[in-house]
Formats: sequence, C-alpha cells, structure tokens
Amino acid sequence: MKVPRIAVTPGEPAGIGPDLCLTLAQTTHEAQLVFVADPDLLGRRAELLGYRVNTRIFNPHAEPTPSEAGILWVDPVALVEPDRPGVLDSANAAYVLATLKQATEGCLRHRYDALVTGPVHKGVINDAGVPFSGHTEYLADITGGHPVMMLACPGLRVALVTTHLPLSQVPAAITAERLEKVIRILDSDLRSRFGIELPRILVCGLNPHAGEGGHLGREEIDVINPVLVKLQDEGLHIQGPLPADTLFTPRHLEGADAVLAMYHDQGLPVLKHMGFGHSVNITLGLPIIRTSVDHGTALELAGTGQAEVGSMQAAVALAVKLARRKAVADTQVGDR
Amino acid sequence: MKVPRIAVTPGEPAGIGPDLCLTLAQTTHEAQLVFVADPDLLGRRAELLGYRVNTRIFNPHAEPTPSEAGILWVDPVALVEPDRPGVLDSANAAYVLATLKQATEGCLRHRYDALVTGPVHKGVINDAGVPFSGHTEYLADITGGHPVMMLACPGLRVALVTTHLPLSQVPAAITAERLEKVIRILDSDLRSRFGIELPRILVCGLNPHAGEGGHLGREEIDVINPVLVKLQDEGLHIQGPLPADTLFTPRHLEGADAVLAMYHDQGLPVLKHMGFGHSVNITLGLPIIRTSVDHGTALELAGTGQAEVGSMQAAVALAVKLARRKAVADTQVGDR
Repeated sequence: MKVPRIAVTPGEPAGIGPDLCLTLAQTTHEAQLVFVADPDLLGRRAELLGYRVNTRIFNPHAEPTPSEAGILWVDPVALVEPDRPGVLDSANAAYVLATLKQATEGCLRHRYDALVTGPVHKGVINDAGVPFSGHTEYLADITGGHPVMMLACPGLRVALVTTHLPLSQVPAAITAERLEKVIRILDSDLRSRFGIELPRILVCGLNPHAGEGGHLGREEIDVINPVLVKLQDEGLHIQGPLPADTLFTPRHLEGADAVLAMYHDQGLPVLKHMGFGHSVNITLGLPIIRTSVDHGTALELAGTGQAEVGSMQAAVALAVKLARRKAVADTQVGDR
Repeated sequence: MKVPRIAVTPGEPAGIGPDLCLTLAQTTHEAQLVFVADPDLLGRRAELLGYRVNTRIFNPHAEPTPSEAGILWVDPVALVEPDRPGVLDSANAAYVLATLKQATEGCLRHRYDALVTGPVHKGVINDAGVPFSGHTEYLADITGGHPVMMLACPGLRVALVTTHLPLSQVPAAITAERLEKVIRILDSDLRSRFGIELPRILVCGLNPHAGEGGHLGREEIDVINPVLVKLQDEGLHIQGPLPADTLFTPRHLEGADAVLAMYHDQGLPVLKHMGFGHSVNITLGLPIIRTSVDHGTALELAGTGQAEVGSMQAAVALAVKLARRKAVADTQVGDR
C-alpha cells in the first residue's frame, strides 16, 4: 500500500505549533509528514529546543516514503517577519493563512492525502484585518464543503450543530435545515471515513432535560424531534433528543458511535475532560481529510520544551488512519 | 455528640423513591433516618421487593438513636390514592407536596437536622394543577431562602447560576445582581457548611471560549467580569470567566473547591459523567440542610429491585456530614 503523505501546518509561528512539529520529527512515522512552513522558523525553533533536525525540501513528484527520525520534510512558505516565540505579530497573519492555503490546495490536488493543522490565533488574524472565525470555516471556503466539527478521544466522539457562536444566538441557529444537514454529514462521514456500517448517534436536546415535554422550552418538540423522526424513517440509527446531563453517562454512551451536541459548551466539556491531551478535532463534510489539535497556541510555552505533544500525535495518527482507509475504499471502487 | 436525625422524603410514590428508602433501611446508619411517607405504601413496596422491615412511628420527643437494620422509622403522611408502581396518579401530587412540607417544617422547627429528598415527578404535579418547577424552588418558598443548586461527586462540585430555564432565556437571566448573589451564597456556604476556609471557585464564561475577548459574545466583558473583579477586591478567591471546555480538565480542577457554571447543560454533563450513581444534589442558600438524589423517578424500575441506591446513599451521607459539622459549629458559637 502507498505510504500516506500528510501535510502538517504548524499554525501560529509565535505559539507552540512549530515546537510540536519538531517533536513529531524526532520519531519515525508510518507516513510521510510534510511541514508546510518556513524552514528557517523551524530551524531556529529546533535550536531553541535543542533538537537536531535535518531539513529537506519536499519534492511532490517523488514517491512518498515514511518519515525518519530527525528528518524534517518541508513544503516551504516564507514568514513575513521573523518569529519571536510568545510574541504575536499581525504581519505574520498572512503567512499563517498562506501555509493553510498551500496545504489545502495540495490536498485538493492529491499531492497530500490529509491535512493536520496546528493551533492558530484567531485574534491576531482578525487584527491583521482578515475576518477569520476559525480553521474550519476557512477550509470550507477554500474547498467548498459544508464543515461539521467533531472532536474525538478514546471512547467518545462529539459533533456539534453550532460551533463558535455567542450563546444568545444558538437557539435561533438550530433550524430544521441545519440540523438535518449536520446529521446527514455526520452519519455519512462516520460510514465512509470511519468505516462504521450503521452509525449509532445520540442527539442532545437544546434545553435542560431536553425541554421536559415542553415545560423547559419547545425547540425539541417544534424543531429537533421532527427532523429526527424523518431521518429515523429513512433508516438512520439516531436517538434523541436526550437530556445532555444524563446522556454522557456510561450506560448511554456504551452503545453509541457519536454524540451530536447542539452547541459548543454542551458537548465539549465532557469530551475534553475525558480526553484532555489526547483528543483530536476532525472536520467532517469537507472533500479533504483534516484533523487538528484540540488546544490553542499556548504562547507562554513556545520555545520552552514544555508543550504537550499528545493531541498533535493523536491528530496525525487519526489523519494517517483515515487516509489509509480512504485509499483502500478508493481501490475497491476502482476494482468494481 | 447528639445523633443527627434526618428526614427522608421518598418523593413520587409510583417511582423508585420508596424502593431506595427501603434499601437504605436494610443497613445500620450513624444517624436516625426518618421516612416522611405513607407507612402502608412502604409496607406494600417492601413486600414487593422481598424486604423484611419493622415499621415504627417516629416520636419527635424521644432522643434520636442510630437507625438499625430492618427498622423503618416513619413520620406518617397518608397517600390520597393507593400507589401503583410505575403508574402516575395526579391525585397523589398533594401527598408528595405534603411530605415535603411536613419534612421541611420539621427541619425549620429543629425536629430534624437535615432533609434528604427522593425524586419527584414535576409533570404529574403540574398536571394536578399545582405550578411546580422543582424541589429547590418549592423549598425556597417554604423556608424563605435564596436557593443555589450545587451538585457534588468525588472530586468535583458544580454550582449553577441558572437552573431549569429554556436555553433561550439564559443569557438575559445572567444579571450582575443574580451572579453576585449566587457567588456570595456559594462562597459563604462552602465556608460555613463545608468548612472550607477560603473557597477557591472557578467561574465559567457564558459564551464558547468565554467570549474570546468579545469576538463570541460580550456578556463576559459587560456583566460577568465586573462582578468577579468586585468580589475579588473583597478577598473572595474566584477565578474567571474561564472557557467551560477547558476548565473541567485536571490541571484546572486540581486547585478548585467548586466550579460555577452559568447554566444547566454547561456544568452538569461533566459532573454526571464523573459521578454518575454517586453524585448528590445540594441546595445552598436555604436556612436548612437539604440534599437530594441526582436522578429521576425511573418509573419503569419501581418495585423491580433494579433501582441503584448509590446517589441516595451519597445524599444521606452528605446530609449527615453537614448536620454533624453544623452541630459542632453551633456548639462553638454557643461557647463564645
């Protein structure tokens, strides 16, 4: 089987993203990891961390080979200004976006089999005058998909109907149309990308106790339930709307492949509690495979060697797994 | 030291509350448990469960003695209609409320040192024409307190600023006045009831990422932060507003005595995930000590012997602990 080739963007140059990439490059991998970044930035950060690395410019026309320890494959993008660990510079926002664009386009052109993204700093990109609400939305703009954010850790997957929205805007954003679209993408990607034949999905209510029969809000009755009934009638294995406070208990989770939460703070506290340091963010609904760390730029840790690489390792491992599964599925389609 | 005397209300007669009380009565206790209920109901349920119990009518003028295994102390309240396990009857809503009233008034008159409540069914009480949004609010009406709901399990305490409110009404309900009152009660009750000298409280933001500097909502800047700063200036050990999705990770929780969540589904999923079967609901801000199970009536399990007694046991254990601490504190005040 072909060795997967994974594009990795370190993200914000003042944060821990470059550190995590360099830590990754200290070990062997079953895939070829290609860092879409400024090679000088990586060289400087390696020196700061006391790592020995051998930088090689990646050749898209060569066959991919597994990454060896100490070898740093780079698909170069130049910084605008030299990086300073821990110090944001809005001039480099253009650099961060350029790495994302180059890596994503590489995925679309099948130069890469998947994309793994390190943490970016939304504030500094917005300060640079670029409206940017997150990786997920930016990638959807480039690739034309309808993104669904899912986080996964051992034992739990949580997808979200709404993501980075003020809480006051959440109830109005839970429309039948959006909910149906998100459930279809979640179901379909769990099948195609994760190889789950009939995904079992638990759907949270919007209100406490899932509205308690209308006593605590009517969105479950008016919006959520009709969508679930419609999709259940089509054969989807979805259950809900369920009270979020009891749904995350072992008895409920046992038989489930994923939980669908209506909003950010309903679904992610449990997931990050369970999986902290080992949870991965996956964007469903895109034409490319994309995983990401579940944490921020941790500016204060950049260059110190204190950054935890667990989530980045998990993001790479999942990207490799999904890329391999896709390669197998594509072959099978080709065989028909 | 005087033996604490604890009033226990089984709650909805068609649910598992009576079963849990009977299971409690199978073992010895360091306190005297008095079940405020219909003795015939308890007798019938005991027969169904195959328990042998010896029912004794409680005498408020006798000195409390620790409950022995198989002895059922009862402070009697008569059912309106005979119970049927698993089948709700709105005629008995009046009975449920009468048990609560009798037990609470017993606490106020120092006949009891604490109240432990089994699960009630809000729907059937409302169907009976009594507006009832929950135990907590009902008890506040009787006792005149300002209730704050807190759940606790080994390793975590979570208090809520808003409780049983449709999600769309939450943002407007987070006022500076309410937040300040809730934090003061939480801080004060952690000191007085739990014996924590300087309670360390982590406060969640309302919006995802605690508003991310105003990009995802302004309530943190406009409402929450000013209250926290004011109370910090007074010496309260509170931290926040913090993003709820990262706050519940071990690194943050380590140094905290309690988390304050802005709403139900922000705080309780993690707590019930961590503590299911062993978490307890405590009402702060009342002139009486009151704990409760963290689960519902589980109608389908009533009379089957399948009901899990863990949360009820934990609720009794905490009530006893808080009653003992109060007795010590009252003695010390008397000594001054």
